[in-house]
Amino acid sequence: MRRSIATVCLSGSLVDKMHAASAAGFDGIEMFEPDLVSSELSPEEVVALAARLGLTLDLYQPFRDFEGVGEEALVENLRRAEAKFRLMNRLGIDTMLVCSNVATATIDSDQVSADQLRRMGEVAAEHGVRIAFEALAWGRFVDDYRRSWRIVELADHPNVGVCLDSFHILSRGHDPADIERIPGDKIFFLQLADAPALSMDVLSWSRHHRVFPGEGSFDLPAFLAHVLRAGYDGPLSLEVFNDTFRQTDVDRTAVHALRSLVWLEDQSQRILDGSEGLLPCVEPPTGFDFVEVKAEDTSDVEVMLGQLGFAFRGRHRSKPVSLWTSGDARIVLNEQHARDTVAHLSAIGFLVAEPDAAGRRAQELMAPVVHRRTYATEVPLQAVEAPDGTEIFFGGPPTSAWIDEFHGGTGTPGELVTAVDHVNLAQPWQDFDEAVLFFTSVLGLEAEDAGVELAGPRGLVRSRVMSSPLSDVRLPLNVVPPADEQSPSSQHVALLCSDTRAAVRRARAAGLSILPVPANYYDDLQARLGLDDEFRRELEALGVMYERDATGEYFNAYTRTIGQVFFELVERRDGYSGYGASNAPVRMAAQRR
Amino acid sequence: MRRSIATVCLSGSLVDKMHAASAAGFDGIEMFEPDLVSSELSPEEVVALAARLGLTLDLYQPFRDFEGVGEEALVENLRRAEAKFRLMNRLGIDTMLVCSNVATATIDSDQVSADQLRRMGEVAAEHGVRIAFEALAWGRFVDDYRRSWRIVELADHPNVGVCLDSFHILSRGHDPADIERIPGDKIFFLQLADAPALSMDVLSWSRHHRVFPGEGSFDLPAFLAHVLRAGYDGPLSLEVFNDTFRQTDVDRTAVHALRSLVWLEDQSQRILDGSEGLLPCVEPPTGFDFVEVKAEDTSDVEVMLGQLGFAFRGRHRSKPVSLWTSGDARIVLNEQHARDTVAHLSAIGFLVAEPDAAGRRAQELMAPVVHRRTYATEVPLQAVEAPDGTEIFFGGPPTSAWIDEFHGGTGTPGELVTAVDHVNLAQPWQDFDEAVLFFTSVLGLEAEDAGVELAGPRGLVRSRVMSSPLSDVRLPLNVVPPADEQSPSSQHVALLCSDTRAAVRRARAAGLSILPVPANYYDDLQARLGLDDEFRRELEALGVMYERDATGEYFNAYTRTIGQVFFELVERRDGYSGYGASNAPVRMAAQRR
Repeated sequence: MRRSIATVCLSGSLVDKMHAASAAGFDGIEMFEPDLVSSELSPEEVVALAARLGLTLDLYQPFRDFEGVGEEALVENLRRAEAKFRLMNRLGIDTMLVCSNVATATIDSDQVSADQLRRMGEVAAEHGVRIAFEALAWGRFVDDYRRSWRIVELADHPNVGVCLDSFHILSRGHDPADIERIPGDKIFFLQLADAPALSMDVLSWSRHHRVFPGEGSFDLPAFLAHVLRAGYDGPLSLEVFNDTFRQTDVDRTAVHALRSLVWLEDQSQRILDGSEGLLPCVEPPTGFDFVEVKAEDTSDVEVMLGQLGFAFRGRHRSKPVSLWTSGDARIVLNEQHARDTVAHLSAIGFLVAEPDAAGRRAQELMAPVVHRRTYATEVPLQAVEAPDGTEIFFGGPPTSAWIDEFHGGTGTPGELVTAVDHVNLAQPWQDFDEAVLFFTSVLGLEAEDAGVELAGPRGLVRSRVMSSPLSDVRLPLNVVPPADEQSPSSQHVALLCSDTRAAVRRARAAGLSILPVPANYYDDLQARLGLDDEFRRELEALGVMYERDATGEYFNAYTRTIGQVFFELVERRDGYSGYGASNAPVRMAAQRR
Repeated sequence: MRRSIATVCLSGSLVDKMHAASAAGFDGIEMFEPDLVSSELSPEEVVALAARLGLTLDLYQPFRDFEGVGEEALVENLRRAEAKFRLMNRLGIDTMLVCSNVATATIDSDQVSADQLRRMGEVAAEHGVRIAFEALAWGRFVDDYRRSWRIVELADHPNVGVCLDSFHILSRGHDPADIERIPGDKIFFLQLADAPALSMDVLSWSRHHRVFPGEGSFDLPAFLAHVLRAGYDGPLSLEVFNDTFRQTDVDRTAVHALRSLVWLEDQSQRILDGSEGLLPCVEPPTGFDFVEVKAEDTSDVEVMLGQLGFAFRGRHRSKPVSLWTSGDARIVLNEQHARDTVAHLSAIGFLVAEPDAAGRRAQELMAPVVHRRTYATEVPLQAVEAPDGTEIFFGGPPTSAWIDEFHGGTGTPGELVTAVDHVNLAQPWQDFDEAVLFFTSVLGLEAEDAGVELAGPRGLVRSRVMSSPLSDVRLPLNVVPPADEQSPSSQHVALLCSDTRAAVRRARAAGLSILPVPANYYDDLQARLGLDDEFRRELEALGVMYERDATGEYFNAYTRTIGQVFFELVERRDGYSGYGASNAPVRMAAQRR
């Protein structure tokens, strides 16, 4: 289907927006009136630029406060509309979005609104344009798409149809199934937006917090399936008012936006056709293949991995890269192209059933491809770059052949660390929604519905976990407060242990210093949970933290930070599925000391 | 009265917070439990540090989910409470905040809650501590302070009283007048916070958007007057959960916080005593004395002021400073200590009835004093620094004697520019609330209840106007989006004209280039307002923008930007009192080109 985007989704001038939409691969744009009004380009120049860029101009929007008014106001509104129809003729745009009246409506009557829209339709027809009537979620009288459709039905004019906007429908909890009762050719336009579940007035929610499909809590695939079943064949168009996208890089936002539409179309097609979608179908990853830490000098990390019970598995045959393993946990230390960098998380490998299909899917979702030099006899790896720059590799099954490229290992790993439990990735505030969509669409991970907020010494850290359906893969994404972006304390690898206390004892014996935990923490823990003295003393002596909830128990401990990376030892008992959130503020305060 | 602050208001570690509170001049702190739990200091070290810093430890908080539960849970809750009472003994804190139950309450009964609080009071008494019961705005059953007081009355134990929090009371719209019915000695603690009017769930509102008194929309002076009339004589304590203060400079926030309490106490005393307050009473300014633009080389600004019809009034007798005037508008150009700076707004002088009293008041509100060297025979000026670094001078009446220090003026000003209409100051996002409080408390300006949001090409610009009661002084404060902080386009001086079109004609004839306004703007203006063709052509030819509302008309035009400053010519007709908000997005887009 054709893909379109409202210019209001993007930052910059109208010219910037059009270039970015075209470069990302959109077919058309919705012209948001204020963007045109602020532009130095004449309507004819806009038309010429759009033609050069291969963009169609799909909608002129918005026209406000038209219907439900007295006769005198209606005449004035028709004059105002006709001036815009003439402008649309200059722009070659054939559809205008007319929102339900918010400010000036005085008459609450389907018949009056229908009569007035019919009169507008007659004037529109003289100018060869159509009007798409939309029920705003906060319309004075018309705030439900079923009512806007009833009015359009009553208006009964070929140039009057409805515009459907997923936000206005789903934010009010209206059932989208009734869309299928609207004839497809009377749905003149479709606007798509997602949004997080927030309890606030719907106008502010709409104006500031919309996100692209796949990033919020609305079921957009089901919504779109209803619209397609109704027979709609116009463009799928994004209209996302978002404070962040308005101020960040326009080219990047446009790609991010298009990715959401490609993903959404794929998901909806699968609903309609049973299984066949647009994109190569891939199962979510079943585990971590490896985690890579990069630094000019990785020797401090090597020492720490040894203390944690990892064994040196070998050096890569052609690159300055080494592999350390314990159980199914594989840590790659990479010194290639790492001049002047301190230790940081540079790549994550995921185990997937079909690495090639996963790589193709990622590329069709416009994930930037990572090129790493491979030599003739080596295994070529499929890899793309996540929004935060972390490289994402697809390997398996069951484990990857690349391991055989490492030689010269010594020693035997301990048995306490058995796997990578989760990897925490710090996200700059402006990339967070994009990261959620990336891991949803590219890897098939699912976001927890709402995140949690952790109080750090330099601000609240928002955390939202992306995980595979069976929780084999868990990626907590942490949004660092703007004033604390240089802090490394939100990025780490959590290693699953069979026994955290034993692993800490072993690591301490090998010389590792565990992050110190204050006595006040243990006082509070004991007061909260009524722990016996001996258990409390054991935890305190080791620096192991503890959480208990209705499902089970969590034992964890942290290493000190090397460069920007630290490790966590975690033990989950009886199905505990959290991340020790109550411990995080204590950990962040300790790291800052 | 004694002044206190909850540690949760401030960023950093507990030690950072205590140092900042002490340095700002607070008498005590509320110990927010997570800050203690995260701290490496033992309770005894905290006590010793507080003693050295001259801080009392006024409250331990919060204790959650105590009452309204079954017997088994109550026994567990009493055990948990007793552990905290022992900790409070170590800390020497005699009052604990107990919030109404949110999560575990199962019994909705005043009598049951009262019986349970009495049992808690008995245990507390054994440890010499008191419990202050607070109705959270989102308590499961107890969410109204009148109910928490009824329960405390029923509990009838000397160690059980209420805690009142302005947010929990005013956010729910509960009448604070009933506070006067509570005996003052049963109000064990008072927490103060303001908040902007927002329509969202009260929990999120409380956790993220509280601000210091004077910065939001609650009537805190009236609230506090009720509490004082009840006979409360404990500390005035701030409890402000705010996402920004959590991540910004702790010392600065502490001063900002204390300023809000000093202002609030002064305001409340005036309510109680008729007129006598804590601070020197000053009337709000009656006009702009001058606006100063600073740069290493101010010659471009000189040329522009000449084109705008200003006359050169003279050079300062001892400094590289010149004065330009037109009507009551006085622009000072300052090249002193300006190495490597481009033109920027550096100071604003206000006309006040008693400059010395205004200066003293500002100093008592902890505004940093500005020292400018004055020579023997020159007029010493009272000046302080606003949060964004702009220097604020107090002069008059009726105009300041400093003008006589300028000599050698030539020429006669035009008659079209008559005064400074308003000065727009750009504020970094993290300083906005502080700026509102500064101009409220120091200058006696009032903030518009809600701000407006202007869509710029690099994000939404939030704008809130501070003005004097008679609007002689207007200061729109603009919050620049984080990604656009380097943009100069939100800082300017608006000059009031008797006739903007004539002033623009004169300026153009003198060679000034007016900011170009696109034809699309005039197309839209004509469509919206039904302007006749001739009027539209006149505006368009001049680059003058136009706004009309129910009260009157606004004509304005902008100069190009020099360094970080530009000028606006404005004409107000028939009592128009806005700022041409509909034009601002067009202006910002044009400035970016």
